[in-house]
Amino acid sequence: MKFATLAHPDGHLDGRLALVSRDQQTATDASDIAPSLLHALQHWADLAPALQQRYDALNAGRVSDVFNFAQATVLAPLPRSPQWCDASAFLNHGRLMERAFNTPPIPDFDTIPVMYQGASDDFLGPKADVPLPSEADGIDFEGEFGVALDEVPMATPPEQALDHVRLLVQINDWSLRALGPREMRSGFGFLQAKPSSSFAPVAITPDELGEHWREGRVHLPLQVQWNGQWFGHANGGEMNFGFHQLIAHAARTRRLSAGTIIGSGTVSNSAREVGSSCIAERRVIEMLDHGAARTGFMRFGDSVRMEACWPGGGAGGQAGQAGPFGVIEQRVVAAPNTGG
Amino acid sequence: MKFATLAHPDGHLDGRLALVSRDQQTATDASDIAPSLLHALQHWADLAPALQQRYDALNAGRVSDVFNFAQATVLAPLPRSPQWCDASAFLNHGRLMERAFNTPPIPDFDTIPVMYQGASDDFLGPKADVPLPSEADGIDFEGEFGVALDEVPMATPPEQALDHVRLLVQINDWSLRALGPREMRSGFGFLQAKPSSSFAPVAITPDELGEHWREGRVHLPLQVQWNGQWFGHANGGEMNFGFHQLIAHAARTRRLSAGTIIGSGTVSNSAREVGSSCIAERRVIEMLDHGAARTGFMRFGDSVRMEACWPGGGAGGQAGQAGPFGVIEQRVVAAPNTGG
Repeated sequence: MKFATLAHPDGHLDGRLALVSRDQQTATDASDIAPSLLHALQHWADLAPALQQRYDALNAGRVSDVFNFAQATVLAPLPRSPQWCDASAFLNHGRLMERAFNTPPIPDFDTIPVMYQGASDDFLGPKADVPLPSEADGIDFEGEFGVALDEVPMATPPEQALDHVRLLVQINDWSLRALGPREMRSGFGFLQAKPSSSFAPVAITPDELGEHWREGRVHLPLQVQWNGQWFGHANGGEMNFGFHQLIAHAARTRRLSAGTIIGSGTVSNSAREVGSSCIAERRVIEMLDHGAARTGFMRFGDSVRMEACWPGGGAGGQAGQAGPFGVIEQRVVAAPNTGG
Repeated sequence: MKFATLAHPDGHLDGRLALVSRDQQTATDASDIAPSLLHALQHWADLAPALQQRYDALNAGRVSDVFNFAQATVLAPLPRSPQWCDASAFLNHGRLMERAFNTPPIPDFDTIPVMYQGASDDFLGPKADVPLPSEADGIDFEGEFGVALDEVPMATPPEQALDHVRLLVQINDWSLRALGPREMRSGFGFLQAKPSSSFAPVAITPDELGEHWREGRVHLPLQVQWNGQWFGHANGGEMNFGFHQLIAHAARTRRLSAGTIIGSGTVSNSAREVGSSCIAERRVIEMLDHGAARTGFMRFGDSVRMEACWPGGGAGGQAGQAGPFGVIEQRVVAAPNTGG
C-alpha cells in the first residue's frame, strides 16, 4: 500500500489519511477507515485489511472519488510521531564525518549502532519551505531511508524486529554543521544541530519494493540534486546495520509507541563515483583529495531534490517510472524574526 | 492552578484533564473545558480563563462533583508530549558526573547549556511501577524540575522565553548508568541510557509557588528518599542556568510545539550536607572521599520517593503542608520478557 497525508480541515496535527495509487497518479481519501496514518499504525492489525481492499480498488480503477495526486499538497506522511530515532548505519559516512568534525573515533562503531533521539513534533512536508535562522550555521541536507513501526515491546530482539515494520519512508534529515561538533563533544548529542526533518510524500508498505526490500535494507539508489545539479545516487543497500538491528537497539530499554520512526542515517557508499547524500561528506572528501573543502554549505534560496529510484529507471527518476516514495524538493529560507 | 491527568475511559493517550484543589485534597473533572492537559496548553489563551474560574470555585467549595484526590490513580500530567529536552543546568552535578563517567570536560559548560533530546511518548505516572530490563544496567533515579510550554517560535530570546512557561512539573529522569558513558563517547547522546521518565502527579501554574518561582528557577528543596531512607534535599534555586536560558537554547533552530517539556537536569547543590538527587552523584563523592564508591545502584523491588517541599515544611513534606507537586513514589521491577 501507498499512503500520503493531507492537511486536516480542522487543523488536526496528525492530518488526514489518503491512499495513493501504485503509479502515484491518483489518490483517494481513506479517513473513513483511519482518520490519520498514525491512527492506522496504532490499530494496524484491525485496519490493514480494509485499507488493502480500498487500495486494490483504487489501483483497479474502481474508486470514483479520486483526485490528481501529483497536484495535491501533502504533509509529511506522519506530521508528528511519538519518537524519531536516527542511526548512522552507513559506516562509510560515519568514518568520513569523524574526519570532517575532527571528533575521536566512535567506540564499537562496527558492532553497536549509534543513534540519536531527534525531535518528532514538527516534520516538514516534501515541498514545504525550510525556515532556518542563519546561513552561518552550516545548512546541510542528509538523504536517508526510514521505517515506521507499530508498537514494539521493550527488549524486542533483532530477529523479531522486522515484524514491526509497517511502512518505509524517505527522509531529509536537515543538519546544521556549525553546531554539530560542539554538541557531539558535550556527549549530550544533537539538538540545535538537528532542526525539523522533512519527508517524501509517500509512505509505503515493504511489499511495494518487492526484492528491493530485503535483509532490513532498502536496496535502491537515492538520487540527490542540489540546485538542479546531480550530487549523488548512493544505494541504501550498503547499510552496515539492517533496520532490524536498529529497531532492537532503540527498544533495548524502552517500548516504542506505534508510529515511531527509525532512520538509517545518511545513505553513503564506499564507491566514490556515486557521490554523496550530504554536503559535509563531499567536503571531507575534498579535504582528503585536495587539502581543503571547495564546496560551501547551503544558502537561503537554495533547493534540494531527493528521490529514491528504481534500478535502471534513469538518473533522477525523471525518465520512466516515478520513485516509490515520490520526490522531496525543498527550498531553504530565512526564518521570520531571526537574524537569518 | 493545579492540574492532574486521569486515565481516559476510551484509552486516549493524552488522558483526561482534572483540576486539583490548592490543598490537594479534592479534584474535579475539567475535560468539558479541555479534554486533556495537552489540549489546554495548545489553546491556553482561550481556555485558561474558564479553567481558572473552575479552579477558584473548587477551592471555594462551590464545585459539587469532586473526588478524593489522594486516593485517585493518576497518569503523568502529560502522558506524552511533543518534545522532552533535558538540560544539565546544575554545574555542580555536571562536574561530578564528568568524574563519575571519566568523560572529558564539556566545552563551554559554564556559558552554553548542555541538553539532550529525550523520548516523550511514554511518560510514567507517579505511582507506576518502572519496568527495566536488567539490574546490570546501573539503575538510577534523577530528581529534577521542569517547565511545560505553550508554542515557542524558533529563535525566541531568553528575555521572552518565560512568557511561554505555562506549567511547572517535578520529574524523575530514570537513567541507566552502565549505558551512559558509551553513548556520551559516541557523541550521539543518551538513548538506551534514558528509559521513560516519571512525573509527580500535579502540574502547577507558576503563580502557585509565589516567591519560590523567580529568575526562571524553582526555589524549593527536592526531598529524595531511597527505600525509605533520606538521600538528599538539594534546592532547585541553585540552577546555573534559568529556564529562560534553557528554553531559548532549545528553540534556537526550531519551534517548540505546545506541550514541550524542558528539564533542569539533576538538582544538585555545592553544599555536601544536602545530599544528592541521584545515586551516581553520591557514588562519585564517595570515590573522591574514600577512593571507591560504596553505594550500589538500584535493585528490582527498590523504591524511590521524591517530593518538593515548602521551606520549613518538614523533612520529606510528611509534616505539615503537602509539597506543591505531590509525591513520586515508585518501585523498579523486571520488565516482562527480558533477562531482568
